[in-house]
Amino acid sequence: MKNVYIIGVGLIGGSFALDIKSMNPSVTIYGIDKNDAHLKEALKLNVIDKSASLSDIADADLIIVAIPVDATVDLLPKLLDTVGENTLVMDVGSTKEDICLKVKDHPKRHNFLASHPIAGTEFSGPSAAIHNLYKGKTNIICEVEDTAFKLQEKALQLFQDLGMRIRYMKPKSHDKHIAYVSHLSHISSFMLGKTVIAKEKNERDIFDMAGSGFESTVRLAKSSPDTWTPIFKQNKTNVIETLNEYISNLQHFKSLMENENFDGIYQEMEETNHIKQILKGIE
Amino acid sequence: MKNVYIIGVGLIGGSFALDIKSMNPSVTIYGIDKNDAHLKEALKLNVIDKSASLSDIADADLIIVAIPVDATVDLLPKLLDTVGENTLVMDVGSTKEDICLKVKDHPKRHNFLASHPIAGTEFSGPSAAIHNLYKGKTNIICEVEDTAFKLQEKALQLFQDLGMRIRYMKPKSHDKHIAYVSHLSHISSFMLGKTVIAKEKNERDIFDMAGSGFESTVRLAKSSPDTWTPIFKQNKTNVIETLNEYISNLQHFKSLMENENFDGIYQEMEETNHIKQILKGIE
Repeated sequence: MKNVYIIGVGLIGGSFALDIKSMNPSVTIYGIDKNDAHLKEALKLNVIDKSASLSDIADADLIIVAIPVDATVDLLPKLLDTVGENTLVMDVGSTKEDICLKVKDHPKRHNFLASHPIAGTEFSGPSAAIHNLYKGKTNIICEVEDTAFKLQEKALQLFQDLGMRIRYMKPKSHDKHIAYVSHLSHISSFMLGKTVIAKEKNERDIFDMAGSGFESTVRLAKSSPDTWTPIFKQNKTNVIETLNEYISNLQHFKSLMENENFDGIYQEMEETNHIKQILKGIE
Repeated sequence: MKNVYIIGVGLIGGSFALDIKSMNPSVTIYGIDKNDAHLKEALKLNVIDKSASLSDIADADLIIVAIPVDATVDLLPKLLDTVGENTLVMDVGSTKEDICLKVKDHPKRHNFLASHPIAGTEFSGPSAAIHNLYKGKTNIICEVEDTAFKLQEKALQLFQDLGMRIRYMKPKSHDKHIAYVSHLSHISSFMLGKTVIAKEKNERDIFDMAGSGFESTVRLAKSSPDTWTPIFKQNKTNVIETLNEYISNLQHFKSLMENENFDGIYQEMEETNHIKQILKGIE
């Protein structure tokens, strides 16, 4: 690999840039971003080597598309129109169905790999990019059989070098499952933050009384609306399903409280404590 | 101080024991617990120096009551019946109204200090006890004027030595505010865990697809039902109020999704991003 293009030099794209550069010092990392300030910041922080534009990508060995998922759906066919036979184009979006569908019949579909690295923080922008973000994390790859053999190989080598675990899934299954373990968590967190902010007009009270438990549950409410609005839009049906189930569980808990059924409350918590075993693998 | 009694040698009581012993090596830390296995474990881990029983407390300089809040309400009057004039009895419960009310007219009310250290982890039992759990954390004290001057002084010295910030509140306000910044977070987390577990019968899928965001939002679902059931019971009215508001915010978010009002979704998230500034003080 000589020329790597990162489209969207934020947390996700920038973190790929940092690790790829460390592992391959001879590679040139080009950054493309519609936000000029981000591009300058990424240069200044040495997240990228050079800034570039979409007209430069013909010589790319690898293009990582790390922009909001609606922008990815728009841009991906245009990228594939332009790239050479040996260019691997991969996305990193938190939804996979719309993206895969959009390029399904593109003559250069085999240049594309649909991926979703399950990694990130609640921060965004080039300054949020960190080394080793992907180490030990899962990367979900969809429709791998539609990517050319040698480009599959190039991608898998990169993920292996980054220390990632690979899982293969269909886009529909990905979007359904990820709605539960990621998208719902974000909504739960945003609405928790909203509920508390609305109540506590005097913010000093929140600050003084909130502990690490509150911080942990509302952490995701710091996430970027630019990233998350298009995710909820593309995964609308699944997200609404998770919300229905979550709200129904909360209503059941509330009715146990109202009926003073505290044995029921105890049981709800005891059964869910089982999450300990499940989470052991994540921590 | 020579004799310190910790009633309930778990995370909270045990962590007090560890720090008090480090700061005052000549003190003897006695542990009292209805769970014999916990008592033995606390001895083995050197969380306490000796095990004791409730009949031993007459010579106590300090008694820290760190048991579930319903058990605290039952035990507190009996403790006050027994203690000497110079004994400081303090509780650490996550509710304050029922506890304060119970001992309001006790002839030895002035031996008691009602406190709630905003500190903890999702773990429990003696093995969860850690040094410096309370450093930099807030301790909320209620009805301080009902505690004898010299015992106020003893308590404040201890909290200062532990590195805690003190805030004074009325029990009613404490219970109302803490419902928002702590009790609701626990329910949101438990119900999120329940929703995902119920959906994902194949736990392997959760494990592989869940990232640090999910882990963060469901962390509190590991908490002990023995601790939390009585908290929800004592703070029922406030907790139901927070649940009503939280559920209503989630329903509003869902209706924005159903109506494809993604500008509205964006705005909900952008307004709540403001939590960043509020949380800066907690982290």
